[in-house]
Amino acid sequence: MPPVVLGGHASPKMDLDLHYMPALRNYGEGEAGSKSEWRRVGRPGWTCQRDATAILGCPAALPYTEVIERILSLLSQDRCPPPVDRPDSENPRIAQIGDHQVIDSPQGTSAERGPAAATAIASDPPRPPIRLGIIGTGLAAQKLHWPALALMPQRFQIVAFANRTRSTAEEFATIAGLSMDGYTPDYGDLLARDDVEAVLVGVPIERIFPIARDCIEAGKHVISEKPPGASEAEALEYVELTARHPSQVVLMGEQVFYGDSRRLARSLIDAGAIGQPRFFVHRVVKHEVPVPGRFSSTPWRHKPAYPGGSIVDGGVHDLAGMRLLGGDIASLSARTEWLNKAIEAPSVLAMDFGFARNGSGSLFYGSFSTPVLDEDGSTRVYGTDGNLIINRGSVRLVRADGSVEEHVLQGSSAFYNEFLNFYEAVAYGEPVVGTVAQSARNMLILLRALRAAEEERTIDVRAEPWNAPAEGVPLWRPRGAVGLFDGLPVRHSIKAQ
Amino acid sequence: MPPVVLGGHASPKMDLDLHYMPALRNYGEGEAGSKSEWRRVGRPGWTCQRDATAILGCPAALPYTEVIERILSLLSQDRCPPPVDRPDSENPRIAQIGDHQVIDSPQGTSAERGPAAATAIASDPPRPPIRLGIIGTGLAAQKLHWPALALMPQRFQIVAFANRTRSTAEEFATIAGLSMDGYTPDYGDLLARDDVEAVLVGVPIERIFPIARDCIEAGKHVISEKPPGASEAEALEYVELTARHPSQVVLMGEQVFYGDSRRLARSLIDAGAIGQPRFFVHRVVKHEVPVPGRFSSTPWRHKPAYPGGSIVDGGVHDLAGMRLLGGDIASLSARTEWLNKAIEAPSVLAMDFGFARNGSGSLFYGSFSTPVLDEDGSTRVYGTDGNLIINRGSVRLVRADGSVEEHVLQGSSAFYNEFLNFYEAVAYGEPVVGTVAQSARNMLILLRALRAAEEERTIDVRAEPWNAPAEGVPLWRPRGAVGLFDGLPVRHSIKAQ
Repeated sequence: MPPVVLGGHASPKMDLDLHYMPALRNYGEGEAGSKSEWRRVGRPGWTCQRDATAILGCPAALPYTEVIERILSLLSQDRCPPPVDRPDSENPRIAQIGDHQVIDSPQGTSAERGPAAATAIASDPPRPPIRLGIIGTGLAAQKLHWPALALMPQRFQIVAFANRTRSTAEEFATIAGLSMDGYTPDYGDLLARDDVEAVLVGVPIERIFPIARDCIEAGKHVISEKPPGASEAEALEYVELTARHPSQVVLMGEQVFYGDSRRLARSLIDAGAIGQPRFFVHRVVKHEVPVPGRFSSTPWRHKPAYPGGSIVDGGVHDLAGMRLLGGDIASLSARTEWLNKAIEAPSVLAMDFGFARNGSGSLFYGSFSTPVLDEDGSTRVYGTDGNLIINRGSVRLVRADGSVEEHVLQGSSAFYNEFLNFYEAVAYGEPVVGTVAQSARNMLILLRALRAAEEERTIDVRAEPWNAPAEGVPLWRPRGAVGLFDGLPVRHSIKAQ
Repeated sequence: MPPVVLGGHASPKMDLDLHYMPALRNYGEGEAGSKSEWRRVGRPGWTCQRDATAILGCPAALPYTEVIERILSLLSQDRCPPPVDRPDSENPRIAQIGDHQVIDSPQGTSAERGPAAATAIASDPPRPPIRLGIIGTGLAAQKLHWPALALMPQRFQIVAFANRTRSTAEEFATIAGLSMDGYTPDYGDLLARDDVEAVLVGVPIERIFPIARDCIEAGKHVISEKPPGASEAEALEYVELTARHPSQVVLMGEQVFYGDSRRLARSLIDAGAIGQPRFFVHRVVKHEVPVPGRFSSTPWRHKPAYPGGSIVDGGVHDLAGMRLLGGDIASLSARTEWLNKAIEAPSVLAMDFGFARNGSGSLFYGSFSTPVLDEDGSTRVYGTDGNLIINRGSVRLVRADGSVEEHVLQGSSAFYNEFLNFYEAVAYGEPVVGTVAQSARNMLILLRALRAAEEERTIDVRAEPWNAPAEGVPLWRPRGAVGLFDGLPVRHSIKAQ
């Protein structure tokens, strides 16, 4: 039986990839997917992916066996999945978002028509793609970064990649369609190359800072995975290092700052759609057991070499979302429990906090080794004149009069947005939203929450060294964009109820 | 158009009564329902109620207009709703609950066959019903207490009732089928009667303690509404007063201690069904605006004369549930916000806490004047080997192997159980579960949570004057019962998934 890959790696639909890839790989007896293989399923690239997703129904609810059955059925018919009907395709919808209008036309957004030119301003001088080196070609590069980079060939060109284990680099090269000529086992070789302008660092937590430091000291622009270090001391060093190199762009991956649904929610809050926002509630509950080939199986996630383990590694994203929506955090208290037998650390955190401006928050982060059922994973913001319900791909605005406005976001890719911010910072000097200092602040607050839980006390985090402005995190928009989504892969539509 | 009452007051289905009564009354132009009126809809008593509920579908989801339409349609056909098919009625289900078996037979529980004899032990001497006086015949007496008392004519006989406003007493007399001979505007007259053995006190918060004190000092057994007072000082006095009268039974209404789904969950936890319970999460989010004729319209709920307002008045029940499940609370922190324009006090509370034995908790209580949508109102307990999801009328056990056991509880009445505990305490000296000290503890913890929020600090509540044993609240069972539900109106069945 040939290995089967669903829809192609060059897809912003990470949900599906992350969810089904392990099963599909097992089915293919351990062989990784490749460009030539996904072409068998349908049209190349993410258009096919989107169709396949629609045909397969709700991905999270389908058992693996059924997914495989459906794919085999498609293969046996030797046909490409038909295009999906787009509802309301005749009538472009115009939405008032914050202080501007977003127009979702039948032609899609400009990103679909030609990514490279999507957000460049007319007067920008043309420039060649950024020549990118990649250090670390493991899961993050393969499953998170490459699908976004694949959409941006006119912005990024991968010229070199380094990984200690050659076989992992070969996997990546196959996925990304690269020859092994650009490979080196020693990242020092990569940094020594003058033609490498910028470096993507995607390595385990304890190696992030030492490698990023080498990159910065070699004069490269850097986009690196979070967190900023394996300890507070390291993170502080990282923040200071970036301050000493103001002419280099350093972006720390925090995809939540760039996620379209949270950006939209922030924009609605800023526009006063729910009056004064007062209570921010976020809840994430996961059943996490190690699965071969997935993030959950990485050894350092079980025996954390840095304080906090799963709660800090996973929780920083949830905290990033709270800070994007409500601003910076002033003081907090928390409780933790050990409830994941595969993780030798606390895995559940309940945290109450106050924001620096106004309003309160409640965050529940749970990683469980036992199954969980019917959990509400939404973020909710309650205001004086309504509330927001934020889920992946949707934002619902519940107004004081009981009417509901549902915003649907399809084809969204936070990683695409993140790489675009990096590109525009390097190419045009745009400000970086996901700074190392912002990620350090997220990490610090979670470390203080762990301390608050351990010492059973309320901790004021205003006086900490990485204090952030009360407004927290700037709202990212593409360069020159009028709307939130101009030129991005996402399609935005609104249903009134 | 005649006034229409759905199914009868003598019903343990409080959901429906509370939800639809105001609309139905409005429809009947302000006239209260009466015994003779409900007979028009179908068979007397709660059997009819249950059928009507099933016919009308999910009560909470139906708009009032549609309910009225359906009832009118039934009336116009001049027929009693047909009995509802009982699934699996041929096969009694046997469930292992904690350390005992519960058998749900096609004949129902013994309460349906004859409530008076349901839980008496064979050797108990026969005794006449408790001669009950009622002080305060307003909403609580009419909507909460009477529906339960109506099921227990062999245990309670209402011989006197007092209320300052005569018209409210007349309303109650009509509902309960009493003559006005037993009425007095002055509760002192009621207390002076030797034939009144016990008194039910259902008055606004600020009058509860002074009246209950008069009752106790007059030598009566007392069952009173919560909270134990309008202030900490009053509550402390109330606790001390009961200690000085050990031969009198004093039960403070806290229906959550008696609710069947939480009792079942507690029993499952005690039996080790989820291993070590570690995290207790409770969330209740309500859209509360004043509606004429409902609890929400009572003036003292808007301008609270006692500290805490809505959060203490409503939140004590949620806290009672946490303490029944997890034991007593050791320390806490909290945040509050003002988000109900009809309430001049904070209306939203997020509280994190640690239990005295082990485990942590997170409570979110929200009363909002703006509408809310798709809120998960379940209580969840996460253990080392599984978790419980507790809703009104159902408890789901999610085991470590992913299997789910769903317990369904139909016809449950926490008020029935509460009155039964009171009866058995007076008649047979059974211990009271809902003591004044337990309610004082619930109230105190919420008052400390409000202080924790105001002062932004973590508060240790172990050293407080009303400290409770670490195990918190005893699990109530009917006298002589082997199972949790022996002789009660509730029907318990189990679905394995």
